[in-house]
Amino acid sequence: MFDCPSHLARLRRRAPLVQNITNHVAMNVMANVLLAIGASPAMVHAREEVAEFAALADALSINIGTLSAEWVESMEIAARAANQAGTPWVFDPVAVGATAYRRRVGARLVELNPTVIRGNASEIIALASASGGGRGVDSTDAVEAAEQAAITLAARTGGVVAVSGPVDFVTDGRRRARVANGHPMMSRITVMGCSQTGVIAAFLVGAEDRFEAVLAAMTCYAVAGEIAHEQADGPGSFAVAFLDVLHQLDDSQLNARLRVEIDDVL
Amino acid sequence: MFDCPSHLARLRRRAPLVQNITNHVAMNVMANVLLAIGASPAMVHAREEVAEFAALADALSINIGTLSAEWVESMEIAARAANQAGTPWVFDPVAVGATAYRRRVGARLVELNPTVIRGNASEIIALASASGGGRGVDSTDAVEAAEQAAITLAARTGGVVAVSGPVDFVTDGRRRARVANGHPMMSRITVMGCSQTGVIAAFLVGAEDRFEAVLAAMTCYAVAGEIAHEQADGPGSFAVAFLDVLHQLDDSQLNARLRVEIDDVL
Amino acid sequence: MFDCPSHLARLRRRAPLVQNITNHVAMNVMANVLLAIGASPAMVHAREEVAEFAALADALSINIGTLSAEWVESMEIAARAANQAGTPWVFDPVAVGATAYRRRVGARLVELNPTVIRGNASEIIALASASGGGRGVDSTDAVEAAEQAAITLAARTGGVVAVSGPVDFVTDGRRRARVANGHPMMSRITVMGCSQTGVIAAFLVGAEDRFEAVLAAMTCYAVAGEIAHEQADGPGSFAVAFLDVLHQLDDSQLNARLRVEIDDVL
Repeated sequence: MFDCPSHLARLRRRAPLVQNITNHVAMNVMANVLLAIGASPAMVHAREEVAEFAALADALSINIGTLSAEWVESMEIAARAANQAGTPWVFDPVAVGATAYRRRVGARLVELNPTVIRGNASEIIALASASGGGRGVDSTDAVEAAEQAAITLAARTGGVVAVSGPVDFVTDGRRRARVANGHPMMSRITVMGCSQTGVIAAFLVGAEDRFEAVLAAMTCYAVAGEIAHEQADGPGSFAVAFLDVLHQLDDSQLNARLRVEIDDVL
Repeated sequence: MFDCPSHLARLRRRAPLVQNITNHVAMNVMANVLLAIGASPAMVHAREEVAEFAALADALSINIGTLSAEWVESMEIAARAANQAGTPWVFDPVAVGATAYRRRVGARLVELNPTVIRGNASEIIALASASGGGRGVDSTDAVEAAEQAAITLAARTGGVVAVSGPVDFVTDGRRRARVANGHPMMSRITVMGCSQTGVIAAFLVGAEDRFEAVLAAMTCYAVAGEIAHEQADGPGSFAVAFLDVLHQLDDSQLNARLRVEIDDVL
Repeated sequence: MFDCPSHLARLRRRAPLVQNITNHVAMNVMANVLLAIGASPAMVHAREEVAEFAALADALSINIGTLSAEWVESMEIAARAANQAGTPWVFDPVAVGATAYRRRVGARLVELNPTVIRGNASEIIALASASGGGRGVDSTDAVEAAEQAAITLAARTGGVVAVSGPVDFVTDGRRRARVANGHPMMSRITVMGCSQTGVIAAFLVGAEDRFEAVLAAMTCYAVAGEIAHEQADGPGSFAVAFLDVLHQLDDSQLNARLRVEIDDVL
């Protein structure tokens, strides 16, 4: 039985230290989102220190939104260090289909077997097929169209894959789930996906079932977006309300709103 | 006849993909401003991919707010790729008069003939004369004092030049316009000018008359600032309201508030 | 007699130009905090221009939150230029105990005798002893436990050292002060410490007594946090209110709330 509140309670009890090698657009918001939900974020990406830090951290997130050669090197060093230390890590393949450079970097990181991959539909399709797709950072594909790609990637990495969209999809290759919570306003402010990736990393810490931990992260995030939209007048006030809501998110809100379906992959 | 609402309608219909090579301070806010007005922003600056992306994008903005040698290289590659692909691009010469390094970089980018240059009065004067001026990122000159410099730059590049200030000035060397909308609170939060540059890029897409497109961008921005100030208690709530107002900006608001004068350069 | 309002009045009268070489997470918020209190921020960090700019600026802040080899080089160049020009500068040793790389960089910057060092308790202890400590960017030590380390560092640099925490501690090696203002919500959003470092730099400009200037910066900041919390529903609305409150902070608010004790180091 999927018990979403227990995953949130674990996160808040442990206040996990989450290292993020993320893009320049996302850094501040991602740190605030992680603090709001109860984690302790650290943005550490220098080649000189990523490995040492990844061994200290409880979880790691890697996001290719804004790339450069040195950062890519840091990402690979950190992912290897996380694998060696047994630290769970999440890969966010932002706009991976947009350029040949991104496709190469994305493929190299997938080979390091991320614990979780989270992207939008176009990103997951591009990553699974090592092909192009999407429009800048936005998806041009429906989540449904990415389900098979997600299952393929999960099988290839042995991890969990999450596809964000109007209805989120999560699979570990064996089970699959759909989260029908959330609101379209979540795509009208930037880095909501990037921040979600950090939140997934935080939920992984101490989880017995990583598929359920990812599902809990997606659900809490979507429910908070839904509530925040009810309090907002537009994207500016939505972003403010989202942090307030995440900070206060409680079991009764989760239980009342949660719209999750889980079944086995056929 | 200048029809500001039709330019905003075009932007929202096309939702143009706007690539931004911008400074670290501006990235997040700029992305949110572009999303709020109806564009699709992408922050892509790696040397390895800027040219490929600039050919895909509908418009490009380049901002020298926070510089480094690699980024300058990316800026030049992207500007050349945009010129080759016929992609309109906007140059924002932040604090160009402050150091010898900025003056050199600014001069090189002007030689690539940006479709539009947007800066404050001190920046436009410094760029036109390749001299110093300003105080950090702030203007120490009145917009009026920069009008001749703007006209000179427009003639040199064959493009449009916009000067932001209490009353904005826009010229294509033949026509000139003044926008008397806006509010001083707009200069009490950071990166309002940088974000405006991105908005100009978005308005250029599909425009028959680029002078009018820039004018529409400046006007929508200033009107939104005016309305946002009426809803705010200080710079924090102003920034929030500004995004909400941009998102909802409609024809009746524009028509009721627009204070624009256009005439020919003598 | 410590006259906090007179320090704030000086800052607003002078609107000092504050150069910041800071981390990617903090840049935007730090600029807005400095604008809100009345300073003029500039984020300038390119090796090619930091020295020239540091000579123009009224004050400089250096923050090692997100490091890379080139930035470290810029930090050292800027600190030396500031020392040569007599420009006061503030060092923020973010997470200095977390990795060997940070410890090395921190030690090199301390040797350049910063006018002020500001950090949390774990950072000040790690910096004074060149040892590890802290958990990511968060302190694991009480402010009281860092008092002796702060006094040691002040004696070593000849400057002022400030320790942020539930009760802030400030010393110049001869005098010490404790500020009992503030609210725990200040640690639930990111970069509040980084932004405080910039505010200290702004207060230093034109100050006759630097110990008192730092104390005034810490007090204004903590009082603004206290008031902002009363207006907020969570971390999102707290961040918004904090900028509004800083912008409007007045003498009567300071005088009514100020909880500062000063005595001599024994």
